[in-house]
Formats: sequence, structure tokens, C-alpha cells
Amino acid sequence: MTAIPALPPVARSVAELRRIVAEWRAAGHKVALVPTMGALHDGHLALVREAQRHADKVVVSIFVNPIQFGPNEDFDAYPRTLDADRAALATVGAALVYAPTVGEMYPEGFATTISVTGVSEGLCGATRPGHFSGVATVVTKLLLQAQPDAACFGEKDYQQLQVIRRFVRDLDIPVEIVGVPTVREADGLARSSRNAYLSVEERAAAPALHRTLSDTAAAIRAGAAVDAALEAGRRAILAAGFVSVDYLELRAAEGLAPLAALDRPARLLVAARIGKTRLIDNIPVEGA
Amino acid sequence: MTAIPALPPVARSVAELRRIVAEWRAAGHKVALVPTMGALHDGHLALVREAQRHADKVVVSIFVNPIQFGPNEDFDAYPRTLDADRAALATVGAALVYAPTVGEMYPEGFATTISVTGVSEGLCGATRPGHFSGVATVVTKLLLQAQPDAACFGEKDYQQLQVIRRFVRDLDIPVEIVGVPTVREADGLARSSRNAYLSVEERAAAPALHRTLSDTAAAIRAGAAVDAALEAGRRAILAAGFVSVDYLELRAAEGLAPLAALDRPARLLVAARIGKTRLIDNIPVEGA
Repeated sequence: MTAIPALPPVARSVAELRRIVAEWRAAGHKVALVPTMGALHDGHLALVREAQRHADKVVVSIFVNPIQFGPNEDFDAYPRTLDADRAALATVGAALVYAPTVGEMYPEGFATTISVTGVSEGLCGATRPGHFSGVATVVTKLLLQAQPDAACFGEKDYQQLQVIRRFVRDLDIPVEIVGVPTVREADGLARSSRNAYLSVEERAAAPALHRTLSDTAAAIRAGAAVDAALEAGRRAILAAGFVSVDYLELRAAEGLAPLAALDRPARLLVAARIGKTRLIDNIPVEGA
Repeated sequence: MTAIPALPPVARSVAELRRIVAEWRAAGHKVALVPTMGALHDGHLALVREAQRHADKVVVSIFVNPIQFGPNEDFDAYPRTLDADRAALATVGAALVYAPTVGEMYPEGFATTISVTGVSEGLCGATRPGHFSGVATVVTKLLLQAQPDAACFGEKDYQQLQVIRRFVRDLDIPVEIVGVPTVREADGLARSSRNAYLSVEERAAAPALHRTLSDTAAAIRAGAAVDAALEAGRRAILAAGFVSVDYLELRAAEGLAPLAALDRPARLLVAARIGKTRLIDNIPVEGA
């Protein structure tokens, strides 16, 4: 019989979180934070494992952040699965779940917004106005609440990771930001909490996103014109059953400047809609 | 012979600041920060003395912050007097001057802004668009660079103090914000680095600002209609030789909501121009 690992405790308030973190600090422990919106999957567990390489104690925050959702987005429908999340986190040895209420994070009178120009523009910033300000504001709060030595974020949300690196540097937040490679299903589909929205047919079609990224990157690396390769990629995504392509773009890996040629380390990024679900993905594209 | 107090050392970079603060922390010291733009006067020294009541070591930052000045404001003309500032700080025992360069604070690629709604609107926010975002951004940086236990700000910039209290609470910056009463000349004029711009005639007329605040507050406390008292105050300021009155308003002491009657602790705030210089001042107005 295998012992069932103990569920990690849950802190609901900033004061409780800080009390626990202060105890760890007093005992000489290093602390890492993994910010999530819950509905945890293997991609999140990979973040926790990476966080454990940087710290003795890993806090996983679970907070579905209202201010990063647009008015017509899936805030209400976003899956909330705290019990299952705690059970999953127990298997990887997370030390604490921090699950504040909306009222704890945004009390009456809350009036502050952090915005980032440049990296937050275009790509997801074009179709989700205010999204990255909502991310920057909540991540800053979480970092200053927990004051970790390191914080881990998935490369799946590559533009988000770049935005976070930018404002953490700009505001001098004393933390190491660690990016973690995307975890994929066997057929290449990037793990995402939103995959739970997919019908059987949509799930079967969804790997076309990653396949197209790989094919397009290979074509560009082989010397194809960037614009033509991207246009062929968009057509392939639609042909696979996606309703629309928000973007398929080649950007500089650092800073996300648009690239017309593969003249520096690059990233190929995509967002597309299948049924009512919007999926995103990205891969690195290095020169030959 | 009186011994000349040693000049406080000057840190020019975030790394140097953090190294010194870390040494103090390791020795068990508490640390307070007094953010200034230099051109120090007795008002600033009062901030340092108050800071010493909250900490063992006081850091005074001196940084003329370009992003809080509008395009037609006095950024270039703002007085820079580092040697005199250090000498003044030596007399009160400040432990460190932190005087970063503009390039250290805003390196190439800087892209982040903190904005605050509500308290930053109206009053100085109306005539200085972007000013409080510039203040919020730089103060956040200074607080996260130095990571003090407490930070002291003058009530002279009352709206600024309210903005700072707001974003520090909203972003969960772990610091105690301390407001310090305005230091005045014998004739009531609030100490300000900008008083150095005044001609002899302007300097003679300038105390009308504080006198009008006192008279208007007395009238309101005595039961005068708020609108009529404010209108009489504006006329008195212009009659004293000021060119224009940006505002003379009664606001709630907490949150700065406009008040039509003295139904809670209030603040009377003024900004007016004399010659080319814009002066501000404010006083508390308590109910009878």
C-alpha cells in the first residue's frame, strides 16, 4: 500500500500567507512561488518541480483573477477545482496552497493598475485589451505578498512571461523569474486548463496547432520566406477545423519585436479558435 | 570647536544600495527611506528626524524623477544641490544618500507604468496629467530597491501622500507609510524647494496662500457655506498678487472625495501660481 501524501494546507489571507512564509524564513528556508489559476494539470506540476529546484518550500497560488478577463471572456466558466488541485499538489510535495478570495485581493476602493508597453502589445494584447495589465497587477501583488526568492511561469504563455520579466525588472521586484518549457500531450497539444472545454471532435483536431508551429518553423529554418510560411500555416490551421486564427507570428525571442527574417533567436506564436475555445501555443525557432 | 559631522556616503546604483541595506539587516537594524528630489530644506530634515523614530538607519534618496514632470514643467530647471544636501543630511545623521542616475532608474527598454484612479484625479492631477503615475512608478521602484521598514513623506504634498498610501496598500508593498506635518517659515509659507524660484516681491506675497487656507478653514468651521468660503478664498489669493488659482478645494481627509459640507475630517488644498512659480499647500479642517 502506498501512503497517500498529506494535502498541503490552504492559506486564505495575505496575513496567513506572510506568517507561514516568515516562519520558513526564520528557519532558513528559501521560498518559491508558482502563480496559477487552478484547474491544475501536468504543466503546472512541472512548474512546481522546477520551483523545488530553486527553493526549499514551494507556495502554489490559486486565484482566478477577474481583472485579466475581458467582459466576454470565460471568467465565470473558468474551472474551479480546489480539492482536486490540492490532491495533485500533494503528489509533488507543494508546501502551501495560497487561495485568496477576490475580496482579499481587490478590497473596496482598490484603484491601482500596472501597465506595460511594448511586449504587451500585439499578439494576445491585440484581442484581449487590458489582459496584460490585469496579469501584471495580480502577479505584482502575489510577488509582494509572498516575497519569494523565485517564481516560476510556463512558456506556454510566452508573451505573459515576457511581460512579467519586463515589469519585474522595471519595478525592481526582488525575485528571480524562471520560465519553464511547455508540457504537451503525446500528440503535441500543449497542456492547458482550457483543453477541458474541447469536445471529442475538437480535441482530435487541436494538435494541428502544434503540428503547424513545427512545420512552419521547419520551413522558416529551411529558408522559406517568413510571410509565405506564416500564411501557409494559417491556412493549415483553418483546414484542420479551427474557426479562426487570431495570429500566427514570428517574433524576437527577447522583447517580441516582429521579425521579417530569422536574423536572431525567435519564437513562433499562435492563437486560434476551435468551436468556442481559444487556444494558444508557441515554440522556439533558432537559426540554422 | 564643534566637530563637523561626517558626510553620509552616496550609493549610485541599486546593487550598492542593496548591499549596504543587507549589511544593516544582517546586523539587526531597521531601515527607513525618505524619498526626495534633493534641494533639501528643513521640511526634508523633519522627514529624516521622523524616519529615525521608526528605524536605526535612514536612507535619503535624491532623484529628480523625469517621468513625473510634464513637458512644460521645470525638470531641467529643478535645483540640483547634492553637496549642500549631503552637508545638511550630515547634521541630522542620515546614514546613506541614494542618488541613482536616470539611466540606473530607467534603463533602455523601460516600459512599465503604475497608475492610480480616484485619489489621483482632480486637484494637481487635473493640471499635471501623468504626474501621479510618474510618482507612483518611481516611489514603487525606490521602495522595492531599498525595501525599508518605513518610508516618510511630507503632508505638504497631501494628494501625493494619499496616492502613495493607496498604491502601497493595493500592491501589498510591505512597508509602513508615515505622513509628516508640513514645516513652515515664520510667516506661514510652506517650505518647498520651489520657493527658491521666488523673487523678493513674490516671496513677500507668498504667505497669502497659507493665510487664506487658515481664514477659509476658520470660516467653514464657523458655519460658512463651503462654496462661498472657497470663492472668497480664491479672490483673496488673487488679490494678494498670485497670477491664477489652479484650485482651492475642500476634500475628505481620507480618499479626497469632494465635500460640499464639513461632515467628516477634511483637508483644504490649494495650488496657485505667482509669477512663473506654482505653489501648493494644504491644512486639515476638523469639525467643530
